[in-house]
Amino acid sequence: MNSFGTIFRVSIYGESHGPGVGVVIDGCPAGIPLSHEDFAADIERRRAGRPGTTPRAEKDRPFLMNGVFEGFTTGFPLHIHFANGDTDSNAYDNIRHTPRPGHADWAAFRKHGGFHDYRGGGHFSGRLTVGIVAAGVVAKKLIGDMTVAATLLHAGGNPDGVAAAVAAQQDRDSVGGLAEVRVNGVPAGLGEPFFYSVESVISHLVFSIPATKGIEFGTGFPCATMRGSEFNDEFIHVDGTTRTNHSGGINGGITNGNEIVFRVAVRPTSSIGKPQHTVNLVSGQVEELEVRGRHDACIALRFPPILEAVTAIALADLLAIARSTNSAGKKERT
Amino acid sequence: MNSFGTIFRVSIYGESHGPGVGVVIDGCPAGIPLSHEDFAADIERRRAGRPGTTPRAEKDRPFLMNGVFEGFTTGFPLHIHFANGDTDSNAYDNIRHTPRPGHADWAAFRKHGGFHDYRGGGHFSGRLTVGIVAAGVVAKKLIGDMTVAATLLHAGGNPDGVAAAVAAQQDRDSVGGLAEVRVNGVPAGLGEPFFYSVESVISHLVFSIPATKGIEFGTGFPCATMRGSEFNDEFIHVDGTTRTNHSGGINGGITNGNEIVFRVAVRPTSSIGKPQHTVNLVSGQVEELEVRGRHDACIALRFPPILEAVTAIALADLLAIARSTNSAGKKERT
Amino acid sequence: MNSFGTIFRVSIYGESHGPGVGVVIDGCPAGIPLSHEDFAADIERRRAGRPGTTPRAEKDRPFLMNGVFEGFTTGFPLHIHFANGDTDSNAYDNIRHTPRPGHADWAAFRKHGGFHDYRGGGHFSGRLTVGIVAAGVVAKKLIGDMTVAATLLHAGGNPDGVAAAVAAQQDRDSVGGLAEVRVNGVPAGLGEPFFYSVESVISHLVFSIPATKGIEFGTGFPCATMRGSEFNDEFIHVDGTTRTNHSGGINGGITNGNEIVFRVAVRPTSSIGKPQHTVNLVSGQVEELEVRGRHDACIALRFPPILEAVTAIALADLLAIARSTNSAGKKERT
Amino acid sequence: MNSFGTIFRVSIYGESHGPGVGVVIDGCPAGIPLSHEDFAADIERRRAGRPGTTPRAEKDRPFLMNGVFEGFTTGFPLHIHFANGDTDSNAYDNIRHTPRPGHADWAAFRKHGGFHDYRGGGHFSGRLTVGIVAAGVVAKKLIGDMTVAATLLHAGGNPDGVAAAVAAQQDRDSVGGLAEVRVNGVPAGLGEPFFYSVESVISHLVFSIPATKGIEFGTGFPCATMRGSEFNDEFIHVDGTTRTNHSGGINGGITNGNEIVFRVAVRPTSSIGKPQHTVNLVSGQVEELEVRGRHDACIALRFPPILEAVTAIALADLLAIARSTNSAGKKERT
Repeated sequence: MNSFGTIFRVSIYGESHGPGVGVVIDGCPAGIPLSHEDFAADIERRRAGRPGTTPRAEKDRPFLMNGVFEGFTTGFPLHIHFANGDTDSNAYDNIRHTPRPGHADWAAFRKHGGFHDYRGGGHFSGRLTVGIVAAGVVAKKLIGDMTVAATLLHAGGNPDGVAAAVAAQQDRDSVGGLAEVRVNGVPAGLGEPFFYSVESVISHLVFSIPATKGIEFGTGFPCATMRGSEFNDEFIHVDGTTRTNHSGGINGGITNGNEIVFRVAVRPTSSIGKPQHTVNLVSGQVEELEVRGRHDACIALRFPPILEAVTAIALADLLAIARSTNSAGKKERT
Repeated sequence: MNSFGTIFRVSIYGESHGPGVGVVIDGCPAGIPLSHEDFAADIERRRAGRPGTTPRAEKDRPFLMNGVFEGFTTGFPLHIHFANGDTDSNAYDNIRHTPRPGHADWAAFRKHGGFHDYRGGGHFSGRLTVGIVAAGVVAKKLIGDMTVAATLLHAGGNPDGVAAAVAAQQDRDSVGGLAEVRVNGVPAGLGEPFFYSVESVISHLVFSIPATKGIEFGTGFPCATMRGSEFNDEFIHVDGTTRTNHSGGINGGITNGNEIVFRVAVRPTSSIGKPQHTVNLVSGQVEELEVRGRHDACIALRFPPILEAVTAIALADLLAIARSTNSAGKKERT
Repeated sequence: MNSFGTIFRVSIYGESHGPGVGVVIDGCPAGIPLSHEDFAADIERRRAGRPGTTPRAEKDRPFLMNGVFEGFTTGFPLHIHFANGDTDSNAYDNIRHTPRPGHADWAAFRKHGGFHDYRGGGHFSGRLTVGIVAAGVVAKKLIGDMTVAATLLHAGGNPDGVAAAVAAQQDRDSVGGLAEVRVNGVPAGLGEPFFYSVESVISHLVFSIPATKGIEFGTGFPCATMRGSEFNDEFIHVDGTTRTNHSGGINGGITNGNEIVFRVAVRPTSSIGKPQHTVNLVSGQVEELEVRGRHDACIALRFPPILEAVTAIALADLLAIARSTNSAGKKERT
Repeated sequence: MNSFGTIFRVSIYGESHGPGVGVVIDGCPAGIPLSHEDFAADIERRRAGRPGTTPRAEKDRPFLMNGVFEGFTTGFPLHIHFANGDTDSNAYDNIRHTPRPGHADWAAFRKHGGFHDYRGGGHFSGRLTVGIVAAGVVAKKLIGDMTVAATLLHAGGNPDGVAAAVAAQQDRDSVGGLAEVRVNGVPAGLGEPFFYSVESVISHLVFSIPATKGIEFGTGFPCATMRGSEFNDEFIHVDGTTRTNHSGGINGGITNGNEIVFRVAVRPTSSIGKPQHTVNLVSGQVEELEVRGRHDACIALRFPPILEAVTAIALADLLAIARSTNSAGKKERT
């Protein structure tokens, strides 16, 4: 179950401390120019090494291993690989049998009977999101005039996320954050009612990013206390423009041509230096754990390019489906 | 794209004012006792006709058309059909070319060029959720000792949702609401990291329900302002029990054996009697629209059984996958 | 697992002696004119009641239950239902515990523990192929200038299939047959290498038809004794026309623009009146069985419209995928 | 569309003359011992370098890049990579614009507008089947007591396939062949009627292997001239054993517990040294082509391990599905 998508289909593989991680992309048309340089900006935005992020220094150079020939995509499986470099597994010896509170350690152990690679979080590592960002770079090339922009609204309530992260780090702690995504230039008619609604597809992918705990589209949670006469977006032009955008650009699961807007809540990183209680899986006793290793104090700082990536992946797939099945633009009955 | 699931797979069909709606379920094992009576309670909870809901009175009697033989499931496609009865399409003439603000009318028109069935919302109608509730009844039988319970926390901020709905109705308006789902008895180890995380699967299905605008797991949006030392759930027993449950029972996309908890924001019904501005798709002019027809003043009142259904559907599928691939319980390495 | 397809997706449901059978089709664009009359010709060709076929007389009138509005497809799930009429279940009492040799009775019993509907073959009945033929009628409308034509080459070696069937029937026996499908007007570039090759998709669907035992594309089984210099199809025109067509219009899993040609071997109907040995599932003893009920003496007679249907379904899906991903016709690099 | 399977899911990537090829496997449970040595036998059987095969000498050493930890599978995506070594792309310059008769060159060009990697067949190369063989090694470990054995019945009609291949090679020609697969120890009840029948799944995968032109199960094509009384397999024991096995171990798409038997027709390799006519894609003229490069004179010689692999892959997936949905062995109603 490591893949998602119907036509534009993305699969990821890898572990934090193995030889590398990567992504295989299906359904990318031929003839798209693609080179290492295309990936530089988004990968740099995701990169660690800045204040409040893990000091693990990865070069994160994408290796366009398959599906690119003479500078263009071939139309066949596109495989982008990232070698792991700066790994230090010693710090993880003490968590093999004492799962970190809030982390996947315990669930992974119960799921696969202790056979998972526990070093650096193994397959659960945020490291794998570099492949998602790479797939997003390709997706952005496919969605035409749509522009996807994600920003961090705050971390721990502080609009200066980095300051909040540094403060948490000094306390051997971590802090959460809130991010927002906006998509402009969206054609009306993407998405399918019910099981492939735009919100279904986007939320499916957003919750694939480790640390996501909530998502709301348009005026999301506040809508619970609103009246319909407040919330409804009145039309002001026959092109579909609405006066307000409480719906976040989506009605009935389908884009309406207005801006897509959604926000994502990111939990504080689970790996913290402060002592916490956990259980020892061998002895069965409760123990105190101080997580070692190098960790982000605020993983939300690194979310914007990842959120842009999954949004672009969702839209690339929805656009590919719409190209095959939508009648919009072909003929209309009024 | 009208289906969802890997092993336990659900497809819905139908329109509000056509002959009927229904659901086809794949992957239901043979030998499960199933009769009309099994559906009565959940369908009654979803039924309209109470204060604050639409006066459309549907009998909602499930017809177990296929896949049941002599009182047991056969293991082959299970098809449950609901005939439409109390339809009145006249009220919809005036919306054919003047899309309701907040509704799918406009997006559907743009998507399929005006060929959709506009009467009563057509395929976008909440009416189709009766099939989802029916699938949920089956799913609940498959998830063993897990119990799924959804409640409405408030409508429009009022814990007495019905009162809020009636008040809105008297104003020819509608009101939103907030619902919560809790699942107990969950085994650890359900879900897959990344693209089939428990949150991905549940949110995918929850956003398939028309009117959903937000979802958060555990201490969702508040986590954005929390520290890791507050948010992390410390283990207090080797069976995985945690002191707190900010994670909502899920770590790294995998159930950890604690209670699954999530909340869902429901927008106010878009169809309201109050005059609103819209555009006429034929003339291109802005017009004033008073929506006729019979509508819920608070669709959130009817959400709990639907939310239970999609949660049970998600868990039935995740459990089926885990049965094939999890090693938990088979062997362990410590 | 009752569905197939990526974009144009077909699901079937039903049992031979239940209330009815049907098909739900996803991915059919809006605005396609569709009425009962469109189905008449292909359903008539599949219909029983002719010499050598079962005397069961079904009206086979398609009920366009969902997804059609005012004579056009809506773009949402298309549901076509066929009520069962002329059923006589008494003849099946004696096979409940004495599986018919060559039939699915035994395998179904072992698979689902005796909970399947054994009457008339239940879900395994050829009756369900009426839904496949209906889906094929829709698919044929979507594949543009491609024309699909299936013929019966012989039954039991006799080019007059009906005569062979009648002769077998007189012996309380049945007989097999060989059918051929040819598709003209195929654009080059449909299909994907490896796991969605044209042959993979077509054979997957052809082996979904009960009684199919073999398939070969182009000069199929004879190729095993040929030299490459004989088998290779030399190009004679830059438009891709080849001198011969041993490949059957497909290279590397992709259509090359020449005629698609394949042949299908159909086994003799398993239900025959002649006494055969079987086992009694209750007593465990070997018994003699004379199959009663009404059966086709040569199911191959009814194959051509079903083969056309699955071929059109395959091509409709491959064409939908190609529309989204192929660069052909958009730009070329030479 | 580079993947196949529902639970046990296989994706391949790569090109003949790129850096390497590989396979990503989803749905492999944790705790399966796996090392390089496990792959040696099947990869050696597939290897070239013997008489009648291409002199391209690949080391074919599997790199267990992801999903294996301390000698056991982790339960997360299993990634096996093979570096390409002995490549010589110069021989392919002359086919860039003069497609080889019988090869995918032309179809690939039309599909993806000339952007494909033409060197060594690119993504269409039989080289990619090394990844399929690797996936088969894993699958064989998962299917319990089932044993899969493939043999070459003849090449060009000669039971000594190597001799036939050498003779063809001496003529700068190639030759086809016929292979057979037998599976023993199959439990009854695998497969689903219609769209996931055992034959559908196996044939889908078999036709994913380049050069396959036909498949028949049991007494396949001969059944077309048989009577039901000849073809039907009479039961001789309550355990399901039949006197004959014309059905090839499958009824109604479901395994019946008898041996699975099928045969596969393999076309002669398309790349031959003899002069053939083709067209020049630039000039539009018919030209004579002598294919250079190193090619197999009889690709059928290398089919047995590949056929075993796809058969094991199919069975691993069908078994995983059956584990979740079959009632067999749990309870029975008689």
